[in-house]
Amino acid sequence: MLTLSPEEKSIAAAIKQLKDEAGSHSPSLSTLSSKLPDLNIKVDACFLSNPYATDLFLKYLENDLIKGNRLRNVLEFYPSQNRMIAEKLSETLNVSSKRIFVGNGATEIIQAVIHNFTKSTLLINLPTFSSYYEFAKSDIKIVYNKLNKCDGFQLDIEQFVSFVKEKRPDTVVLINPNNPTGVYVRAEEIKFLLEELCDVENLIIDESFIHFSFEDDTFDFKSAAELVESCDNLIVIKSMSKDFGIAGIRIGYALMDENKVNHLLKHGYLWNISGMAEYFLGLYTKEAFYKEYDGVRRQYLKVAQDFFKELSIIEQVKVYPSSANFTLVELIDGSDCDIFCSKLLIKHGVYTRTCKDKVGLEGEFVRISARNSEENAVTINSIKDIFS
Amino acid sequence: MLTLSPEEKSIAAAIKQLKDEAGSHSPSLSTLSSKLPDLNIKVDACFLSNPYATDLFLKYLENDLIKGNRLRNVLEFYPSQNRMIAEKLSETLNVSSKRIFVGNGATEIIQAVIHNFTKSTLLINLPTFSSYYEFAKSDIKIVYNKLNKCDGFQLDIEQFVSFVKEKRPDTVVLINPNNPTGVYVRAEEIKFLLEELCDVENLIIDESFIHFSFEDDTFDFKSAAELVESCDNLIVIKSMSKDFGIAGIRIGYALMDENKVNHLLKHGYLWNISGMAEYFLGLYTKEAFYKEYDGVRRQYLKVAQDFFKELSIIEQVKVYPSSANFTLVELIDGSDCDIFCSKLLIKHGVYTRTCKDKVGLEGEFVRISARNSEENAVTINSIKDIFS
Repeated sequence: MLTLSPEEKSIAAAIKQLKDEAGSHSPSLSTLSSKLPDLNIKVDACFLSNPYATDLFLKYLENDLIKGNRLRNVLEFYPSQNRMIAEKLSETLNVSSKRIFVGNGATEIIQAVIHNFTKSTLLINLPTFSSYYEFAKSDIKIVYNKLNKCDGFQLDIEQFVSFVKEKRPDTVVLINPNNPTGVYVRAEEIKFLLEELCDVENLIIDESFIHFSFEDDTFDFKSAAELVESCDNLIVIKSMSKDFGIAGIRIGYALMDENKVNHLLKHGYLWNISGMAEYFLGLYTKEAFYKEYDGVRRQYLKVAQDFFKELSIIEQVKVYPSSANFTLVELIDGSDCDIFCSKLLIKHGVYTRTCKDKVGLEGEFVRISARNSEENAVTINSIKDIFS
Repeated sequence: MLTLSPEEKSIAAAIKQLKDEAGSHSPSLSTLSSKLPDLNIKVDACFLSNPYATDLFLKYLENDLIKGNRLRNVLEFYPSQNRMIAEKLSETLNVSSKRIFVGNGATEIIQAVIHNFTKSTLLINLPTFSSYYEFAKSDIKIVYNKLNKCDGFQLDIEQFVSFVKEKRPDTVVLINPNNPTGVYVRAEEIKFLLEELCDVENLIIDESFIHFSFEDDTFDFKSAAELVESCDNLIVIKSMSKDFGIAGIRIGYALMDENKVNHLLKHGYLWNISGMAEYFLGLYTKEAFYKEYDGVRRQYLKVAQDFFKELSIIEQVKVYPSSANFTLVELIDGSDCDIFCSKLLIKHGVYTRTCKDKVGLEGEFVRISARNSEENAVTINSIKDIFS
């Protein structure tokens, strides 16, 4: 069972304070580094992002904007308006531009959707990403569908549908794959859900991690995106931070009924994405870029799954199967998850996500994300070391 | 009186269509260039931005991020949360961090403030920046205080105060200096306004152009920012796009009562500015950068005022005195303002803002912004040419 030395305890207390200040999220690497400069952080395994995709984006940016002397354009001038960008995305997403809403990161979209369309009751699984229920204003009732540890936090789709029908919420949220569990709901189950819940006003499927999911060893992924053309109540929300490794530029999109897009754009969201985000979306629609991206996506998936396998061998932990780029790890040797994360960070500079504060996740859980192979090896060795 | 050739007429029609698609704003340079590639745009005098400040920002960015190899950090990782950034700005703004709300451009802030705090009636001058009344939802009553051409669109502060007291709105908006008139309300009049209107719930002063204003030939500017510490109803909104020449990175801030900031942050605005915007704010708080910035601000002011003087000599136009980086120009030879702008763009690649669609501005008006000296000379010569 892990313990901290007196010196480690005082650093752990400072880390805890930064965590508390960050609310239900984690302090960023830059916050940690600036407030606790003595921490020598080597691996940010708290951060959910494909580093190979960042490499790829930087390669294009270097060539197009820096060597191509176009960086100034991206920084100086106003970006295009929302509808203009939606038009450019339409072909790539294979969805009518009228159903596309572009956002300053998925968080802006979540806020926009919950504030504008949720009128009475929001139903969501627990544990899950907290912003959906935290952004709901105080007059909105939140109903939780508790996922169970004994089922490995799997979603029983028939139970879920019955529960929704019983509770009659106007908004249902499903994050697929789920965060922090990494549990994936298969495409055929999503179709069943859509058929059964066609009278729920807002059926939100958050696919921010969908590029890391797969149904077989081809590593293809199956998005619900195109289903918005036939399901008026479906809202697909998609962060592009994680899969494309570009959280700093703030970009995401949502697909939804045309009337909902019109409602949002009527009174706002005028120039809500940056020139850099618009440049990225331009790349995203280019076949050559996407092909290379799909290569690094598959590469990362393989690296991530190998990493999870290696992690699962460590005897003090139980690793839950994941279809995302992180895995939920339970400490089964009696160690406290805050102590585990602090020790790993202080002794080895490996930053992982304690789930102590994660609502609906009782027990000693840590979320650990996959980085590149070298960093993953550091993470594995560091965990082995602190348990040794 | 200006006329168009048949060929020019067909291009003008295409320009008009793009303008209509952009709503009450203007199509961006990139939209114009991509949709009408035959236009060879040389000067964007529609765009309200200090090009010398862009040069300065790029110089720092080149050194810090590109040569310093830190660009990846800005693009890959999540930015800090709103309150964290507010803390960093507090000293520079000389306002408590609890009163600072950081936004993804002023447009996000305008939307946030109007949607969250305006409950019944919004009172605003006309003509002015349209987003304030366009963002108001349909149940909000808008009351306009019409500014008069015969007074040079000056605000009569005593009349304005009486009008507000008569109409009893919960929200008053004053853009200072005003857009598109460039008319400035002096600091002592702002103080009078605040004293007289202390029972208006939301007194919004938009200072997006304040860095271009001055009360005497020292070219110092006087912001109402620090008054938020004593006036709970005051909301100062500040775009940083224009003065710092960085519209593409989307950054602005607002100063307001602590309870209002808490209200906004309780249910949203989690990671609403980009890594690049956070990098810029870091620069903004550095004395060395600000000192250099203040130099290029003064340089640009001088260039702008000289430009307006030169413009005013052209006999077919009347130039309204401006304390901003643009000037309102009235065509007094009977020419149509749409034709003026189209002709200038088609024949000389100089892009100016027709005010044909500007609500509350009847007549043939064009808004022309100052760029650098060389570009301003092109603008002047081009205008002279089309009138010759």
